[in-house]
Amino acid sequence: MIKARPITDYSRLSINTATTRGKWTLSQAIDGYARAGIGGISPWRDQIAEMGLANAAKAIREAELTVTGVCRGGMFPWKDEAGRLAMLDDNRRAIEEAATLDAACLVLVVGGLPEGSKDLAGAHAMVEEAINTLLPEARAAGVAMAIEPLHPMYAADRACVNTVRHALDICDRAGEGIGVALDVYHIWWDTELRSQIKRAGKERLLAFHICDWLVPTRDLLMDRGMMGDGIIDIPLLRGWVEESGYEGFHEVEIFSELDWWKRDPEEVLEICKERSLTAV
Amino acid sequence: MIKARPITDYSRLSINTATTRGKWTLSQAIDGYARAGIGGISPWRDQIAEMGLANAAKAIREAELTVTGVCRGGMFPWKDEAGRLAMLDDNRRAIEEAATLDAACLVLVVGGLPEGSKDLAGAHAMVEEAINTLLPEARAAGVAMAIEPLHPMYAADRACVNTVRHALDICDRAGEGIGVALDVYHIWWDTELRSQIKRAGKERLLAFHICDWLVPTRDLLMDRGMMGDGIIDIPLLRGWVEESGYEGFHEVEIFSELDWWKRDPEEVLEICKERSLTAV
Repeated sequence: MIKARPITDYSRLSINTATTRGKWTLSQAIDGYARAGIGGISPWRDQIAEMGLANAAKAIREAELTVTGVCRGGMFPWKDEAGRLAMLDDNRRAIEEAATLDAACLVLVVGGLPEGSKDLAGAHAMVEEAINTLLPEARAAGVAMAIEPLHPMYAADRACVNTVRHALDICDRAGEGIGVALDVYHIWWDTELRSQIKRAGKERLLAFHICDWLVPTRDLLMDRGMMGDGIIDIPLLRGWVEESGYEGFHEVEIFSELDWWKRDPEEVLEICKERSLTAV
Repeated sequence: MIKARPITDYSRLSINTATTRGKWTLSQAIDGYARAGIGGISPWRDQIAEMGLANAAKAIREAELTVTGVCRGGMFPWKDEAGRLAMLDDNRRAIEEAATLDAACLVLVVGGLPEGSKDLAGAHAMVEEAINTLLPEARAAGVAMAIEPLHPMYAADRACVNTVRHALDICDRAGEGIGVALDVYHIWWDTELRSQIKRAGKERLLAFHICDWLVPTRDLLMDRGMMGDGIIDIPLLRGWVEESGYEGFHEVEIFSELDWWKRDPEEVLEICKERSLTAV
């Protein structure tokens, strides 16, 4: 039985700004997380744009927060040539932002089927083509790309890479500089999870995201749970990534219009901190 | 490129009674499907109980409908010994009903985590233990058991077997008399789908269920789409099961409180028939 290591402080706790976006801008989040004694932050690009990249970089540096990821690059499959070029441009900006923020990785949500398409294999091929185009630029910028396999319920419209196995197959073909961002919400159900985490190995385990799967889940996107409120054995999964050498942060990412986004972010952070000691 | 065979009539079309349960009892469904010239029916057990098993068997026989499955056995993982015994009893009744109705298979929705549990591996073990107990009884009754891998979004509360690969692993260990029921809704996203369907082979492909995945999907359970209204390439998937020798029915199963259950079942059947020629 693999046991996750004891957690005794918040030095490896990171908050993805999605968790507090119901109430806080990025600027407020940076201040709030630092004030709460949390070690890391993972900002979303729309919030970076709103604050301004240089301002965000300066504020995060001054707050001494580690940037555990930038969310997100990807959305690769295109409908037409104009779409393909716009997608590449957008991803190039994402790489630049991740470099400027000295992020541990650029999280890739790879995208689903192009509008009007039922060609899943075609979408998979577009994902790999785009990664092959962008990866050398990411390497040159010193940015690690992290494919985040999303839950299969997002295969059509958000990400057509839905298992750690598929993500690692892509990494194997792409070469150096790319790995995976693992979110317990997306992968907890997978019978191959432990063996695929072992296959990833320390070098390719670039991020570990936490939240919980609620029963019932009332909405496909906006009803993620706080760690401990659902049915995911998070310590077991953390033990598996640590077994493979992962020593990075535990990043809380909770999409929850139905609950957590309505609450006072100070309260949300206190509960994240408490649960990071008792349920992770 | 595998091409599905042309469909020119309704002889291989079956309707799962879930599709019309918003308006019709089993008795009404039997009459309605026969009147519409549809070849098969797959009844749910609560509706069989309401009509009475002997009455249902007689009416289906007289309507000359093929029973393409009985929904459903399973829900195996138990919380305590009383729960285990009740689960076995219920599954024994399901086997008897499937035998009485001369069903092509008893569909197994294997169940999720027991209440209060986070032990996914434990639930998997319970599923196999229950199958090992019940399979000899099913064989003796002449009933083929069909594991239906459900979409991973149901792993916690409905079925902890979520891929064709996992279902076939269980079949391999269990031996003769058990196979899979494949529903395009649950498995369309899986990169291993074609290879796992080949692995299943004709003998273990016991049912082929159709509907569609809508974008957006507004509810985890009650927003399945009519064939052709979503993003699943159903002819491609049908080609794959036929490539493995499947010659059985195409069973329409649409859970849709949000749309189809509100409509006149006569209209629903006409659309099922039309789409069975154009979108399957």
